[in-house]
Amino acid sequence: KKSYKITLLPGDGIGPEVVSVAKDVLLLTGSLHGIKFEFQEKLLGGAAFDATGVPLPDDTLSFAKQSDAILLGAIGGYKWDKNEKHLKPETGLLQLREGLQVFANLRPATVFPQLVDASTLKREIAEGVDLMVVRELTGGIYFGKPRGFGTNEHGQEIGFNTEIYAAHEIDRIARVAFNIAQKRGGKLCSVDKANVLEASMLWRKRVTALAQEYPDVELSHMYVDNAAMQLIRYPKQFDTIVTNNIFGDILSDEASMITGSIGMLPSASLGDSGPGLFEPIHGSAPDIAGQDKANPFATVLSAAMLLKYGLGEAEAAERIESAVLETLNKGFRTADIYSAGTKLVGCKQLGEEILKSV
Amino acid sequence: KKSYKITLLPGDGIGPEVVSVAKDVLLLTGSLHGIKFEFQEKLLGGAAFDATGVPLPDDTLSFAKQSDAILLGAIGGYKWDKNEKHLKPETGLLQLREGLQVFANLRPATVFPQLVDASTLKREIAEGVDLMVVRELTGGIYFGKPRGFGTNEHGQEIGFNTEIYAAHEIDRIARVAFNIAQKRGGKLCSVDKANVLEASMLWRKRVTALAQEYPDVELSHMYVDNAAMQLIRYPKQFDTIVTNNIFGDILSDEASMITGSIGMLPSASLGDSGPGLFEPIHGSAPDIAGQDKANPFATVLSAAMLLKYGLGEAEAAERIESAVLETLNKGFRTADIYSAGTKLVGCKQLGEEILKSV
Ligand SMILES: CC(C)[C@H](C(=O)O)[C@@H](O)C(=O)O
Ligand SMILES: CC(C)[C@H](C(=O)O)[C@@H](O)C(=O)O
Repeated sequence: KKSYKITLLPGDGIGPEVVSVAKDVLLLTGSLHGIKFEFQEKLLGGAAFDATGVPLPDDTLSFAKQSDAILLGAIGGYKWDKNEKHLKPETGLLQLREGLQVFANLRPATVFPQLVDASTLKREIAEGVDLMVVRELTGGIYFGKPRGFGTNEHGQEIGFNTEIYAAHEIDRIARVAFNIAQKRGGKLCSVDKANVLEASMLWRKRVTALAQEYPDVELSHMYVDNAAMQLIRYPKQFDTIVTNNIFGDILSDEASMITGSIGMLPSASLGDSGPGLFEPIHGSAPDIAGQDKANPFATVLSAAMLLKYGLGEAEAAERIESAVLETLNKGFRTADIYSAGTKLVGCKQLGEEILKSV
Repeated sequence: KKSYKITLLPGDGIGPEVVSVAKDVLLLTGSLHGIKFEFQEKLLGGAAFDATGVPLPDDTLSFAKQSDAILLGAIGGYKWDKNEKHLKPETGLLQLREGLQVFANLRPATVFPQLVDASTLKREIAEGVDLMVVRELTGGIYFGKPRGFGTNEHGQEIGFNTEIYAAHEIDRIARVAFNIAQKRGGKLCSVDKANVLEASMLWRKRVTALAQEYPDVELSHMYVDNAAMQLIRYPKQFDTIVTNNIFGDILSDEASMITGSIGMLPSASLGDSGPGLFEPIHGSAPDIAGQDKANPFATVLSAAMLLKYGLGEAEAAERIESAVLETLNKGFRTADIYSAGTKLVGCKQLGEEILKSV
């Protein structure tokens, strides 16, 4: 019997509630596919700060590194908003990404037929949207040096950051994206600002050169401002998008809002070797934390990505995806995706309904 | 009789056609308000490159600097896509912005009631959207140094840019935005990525400090990824948005696409003193250039912004805005905004119809 070590990082706010559901779904699914899981919970974010004084304890990072995959809930909350930068929950997350070297962030934006009316886009525009944003996650302006504060020659206070990419960083994220595009619709759109930024010019040059190795993928290039427009105008034109860290931050959130149901969307962050990090794209929603109102679908789907991309257990992943669709078809909804005629349930009950469909 | 010197920069593609209409509208409007215009056409972009070998001839910049306002059509086209960077039409535009020191880019995104169905957003979401993006235009990563290409310590090719803001650059754009918010709905949303970037932390600190001088403006802060979502979720929550150069590039394009009719949207770029630069937000549309199909509304509305923000001629500006609305109400449409039941006309005829309504 196969056995995997999974690090659970429930984090803050609704994190523990949704991770708890996903854990049960993993357990049951595993039992049906001859897969055993050893779960270990560790601290991250505000919860880690409260308990240990830092948002990413050494123990969490080293344990996570030695596990087979990591499932994260959500981090952050008003309570820690005034923390110094290096003590903010977000900093813990950035340190975790860097520490794990998970440079490829996969963010699908899928419109579920059952939820198409939740989109603010017209039905004919939103219907059938199914795209994947591949975001570079451990480079660019997020981590580039020099960065900081200073004084310029006029005695003015300045703040600065460096957008920087090396050829190998571009190549490795582009390869991930080409591979994904190959398995999806065969179309890859690389998004940059090569009409202005040197970092983007190198990006475009490297991605273009790699395209020769993927003759079955149709590569196009788009400026980031245009991409922000095209996602609204006609999102179905996109299959796979690859872009840098900051543009990916913006565009993947934009793409997810097009679906109208960000409570449904998972993500995966992968490295070259070592465990991947899997998490819903939504936040910690401190307003509804502990009230059994959270939507666990996105975390359950993150567990499916964990099986597929993290452990290579594609069949088990599909079982979870089917269970999610079946639960939607049966009409069960949490408050964030509720509409007239469907059945409003809490986080726990939705979890039980998903289990019934696994 | 008042007299103003106006530099016309028709540029490339449909630029000459739409500028020609706007010029006629300015002339007639001026004659009704005791305003005389002296127009002088100068070269910019691909047209300038073809004639002089550079996208911004010295003659254009120095003439523009000595005029009272500048009206630009559009620049760029496939023909010059392979130009070296410093010879691209876009570079001419960036040099013009820097040369004129027009640091404040005002980009309204207005949904015209007559065109609400052109939006891909549901009617109830798009209806009544009326927001203004104030984008910093002469700083940040567009102009920051160091920038360029190199080799890192592993012998890897690198490309890099610097996102940098000095206190006075933030203060002056924030003041413009607070002033605009005061005259609009009294709400200013400053967009940054202060949870990650030092340049954004300084931005937030300076904007927050300035708020004390504008007690009648309600200031809020939003991360750029969230702003990209909120623009789709509920665009009516926004009144005035202020942000840096690159985030403004992305968000203002996103906001304009929400209206569904980017052929309607003008922009103004203003400095502390010296002439402002006024241009439609759409591109040069080389595909339809010279075919009398272009939509001149956005350039005509840019001429209205020129009167209002560039020359302080608010009454004349309102006359143009009213003429645009009246022409829309009469049902005249170019192909890009045509819908069943309206009257399809070309660029020239639409210009004549606008003149009838002036
Ligand atoms: C919390 C924040 C630092 C993070 C980011 O900007 O990467 C978040 O927005 C995300 O996309 O995961
Ligand atoms: C053409 C390009 C350099 C320019 C920019 O990025 O500023 C354009 O996108 C704009 O917004 O005016």
